[in-house]
Amino acid sequence: MKKPPTIKDVADLAKVHAATASRALNPQTRDKVSARTANRILEAAKSLGYAPNSAARSLRTKTSSVAGVIIPDLRNPVFPPIVRGIEDALREAGYMALLGNTDGDVERENELLLAMRGRQTDGFILATGRRADSAPPDGVPTVLVNRRTDAGDIPSVTSDNAAGVHATVRMLAELGHTRIAHVAGPQDLSTGWERYRAFLDAMEAHGLDSDPARIRFAAAFTEDAGRDAAIDLPDDITAIIAGNDLIALGCYQALEVNGLSCPTDVSVVGFNDMPFTSTQRPSLTTVRIPHYDMGFEAARLLLERISSPSAPAKRVVLPVELIRRDSVVRASR
Amino acid sequence: MKKPPTIKDVADLAKVHAATASRALNPQTRDKVSARTANRILEAAKSLGYAPNSAARSLRTKTSSVAGVIIPDLRNPVFPPIVRGIEDALREAGYMALLGNTDGDVERENELLLAMRGRQTDGFILATGRRADSAPPDGVPTVLVNRRTDAGDIPSVTSDNAAGVHATVRMLAELGHTRIAHVAGPQDLSTGWERYRAFLDAMEAHGLDSDPARIRFAAAFTEDAGRDAAIDLPDDITAIIAGNDLIALGCYQALEVNGLSCPTDVSVVGFNDMPFTSTQRPSLTTVRIPHYDMGFEAARLLLERISSPSAPAKRVVLPVELIRRDSVVRASR
Repeated sequence: MKKPPTIKDVADLAKVHAATASRALNPQTRDKVSARTANRILEAAKSLGYAPNSAARSLRTKTSSVAGVIIPDLRNPVFPPIVRGIEDALREAGYMALLGNTDGDVERENELLLAMRGRQTDGFILATGRRADSAPPDGVPTVLVNRRTDAGDIPSVTSDNAAGVHATVRMLAELGHTRIAHVAGPQDLSTGWERYRAFLDAMEAHGLDSDPARIRFAAAFTEDAGRDAAIDLPDDITAIIAGNDLIALGCYQALEVNGLSCPTDVSVVGFNDMPFTSTQRPSLTTVRIPHYDMGFEAARLLLERISSPSAPAKRVVLPVELIRRDSVVRASR
Repeated sequence: MKKPPTIKDVADLAKVHAATASRALNPQTRDKVSARTANRILEAAKSLGYAPNSAARSLRTKTSSVAGVIIPDLRNPVFPPIVRGIEDALREAGYMALLGNTDGDVERENELLLAMRGRQTDGFILATGRRADSAPPDGVPTVLVNRRTDAGDIPSVTSDNAAGVHATVRMLAELGHTRIAHVAGPQDLSTGWERYRAFLDAMEAHGLDSDPARIRFAAAFTEDAGRDAAIDLPDDITAIIAGNDLIALGCYQALEVNGLSCPTDVSVVGFNDMPFTSTQRPSLTTVRIPHYDMGFEAARLLLERISSPSAPAKRVVLPVELIRRDSVVRASR
């Protein structure tokens, strides 16, 4: 077997000192070397197949510069930009992301956590948090993104769900809507719960009746669950506020099945402004959350936790913006 | 400092033998334990914060059960289902995925490869391959997904680009289109190149003239690049075959800018059937590639390579399906 290349081999090929090669190969010290030299050293390392031995360092320091990122399903369009933001922030600090999907299954999540811990993961970013979750017992650095817990003892980065729903109700009220339905998301998740509570508050603030007959709870944040929940809403509604964009698309389907048209008969508003909502038919009015920034901030928060594990648990709430598109018109009934 | 929990502690809490706990905690042997017992053991491990020490094993065996997955950008909707397929197949074998994005930047890719090797990654799945790439010099197991190299010395999983374009040209010819434009993708990528070559072949096979004046090359597989490339196509065309769906959406924009309408004036066909093409305006006719299956197969191929590194490089080509939607109508000019 060929002997694996050493840092000395890389330095020789790039015609630099071993110390310079070492600095260039470590993302945390790379900026101490000129970009041109760093690039030459990286090319040399690549052509030799050089790999710094992180496993030895990992065993010595009990850290790996790897963060575990666990999400429900990457195919839900809200997650790719969040994960991309996480990855970019981690990379700046020389960290990488191990990725896992749970499909919302708690057992699968436990398996993933265990498998990631087995690889000396330095901490976790979870987009799978439930309101009732508690902080990990052994204090492994953990940050929630998009969702939070009721107890608030796990740091989190979320968007301003209440402000988004209040802006939505205000817009609909100004357009003459009074019989407004809400197809809420699951109530064990902070996103579903906060938006539902904000709906009740905002309706009351505008002197509108939030009749329970016009409220439905979708079993999941999916198009199918949205359609199933919206299918038997009363005919007299003129607008639906959906728990998220996928539920809103399910409402489109339910309206069509019932021979109603959006926006002529019923206006629909989503939440998230996930990619491609602007090109739906009709284009979806929704609340834009800063996906990428949420991921980026969550990774920064995790890096903070890793360096000061006992700092108090911060909650970061990022602002949202109501985006009006074709799915909303003035109430005509 | 508290002593970290051992496998014995987990076994005691779950009231099983240490050997049973060990089997349940290893994904590769978990099926030798009943699902109920395995679940009890996993719960016990979680409540104790137990982590099997993979770093020690990694140093001993020089493997980590981690695969590096490198893609251009997770925010391109074609990649999330591919990555999800990869993750599911890896997980079945007790592997996990480290994820990195390159934005098509070769230097960034080299950095990622180096950083992942430093973490004893067992192999790589790259969605970033270029036609001119060659196999890694030190034989680290590598598989390409979605793209391949000309030399074919790196195993790959792609979709049948030629068959998809042939089916598209046949459909358009049957609908009376003769002046068909092609807005091709980048020619240094197999996806862009194979579809372009297939366009020339298929036009010839149907006795149609593939006039170079009706062919454009987009600088990237993006909506913006598609719009820029399509903006000065001649007015007499009745159909555009786009290099992929994002380029097709760029063609929608270019037609609108030029006061033309899709499909009334010009039919448009994409490639990939990425999520949410069916709800575009107009809904996009496109060639469906099996995203998830491509990812799943690529991970299987990688696991094969890891166990037999010197096996010949396989090329797997998966079938595609033309999906006709509203963006295509009979030629009216």
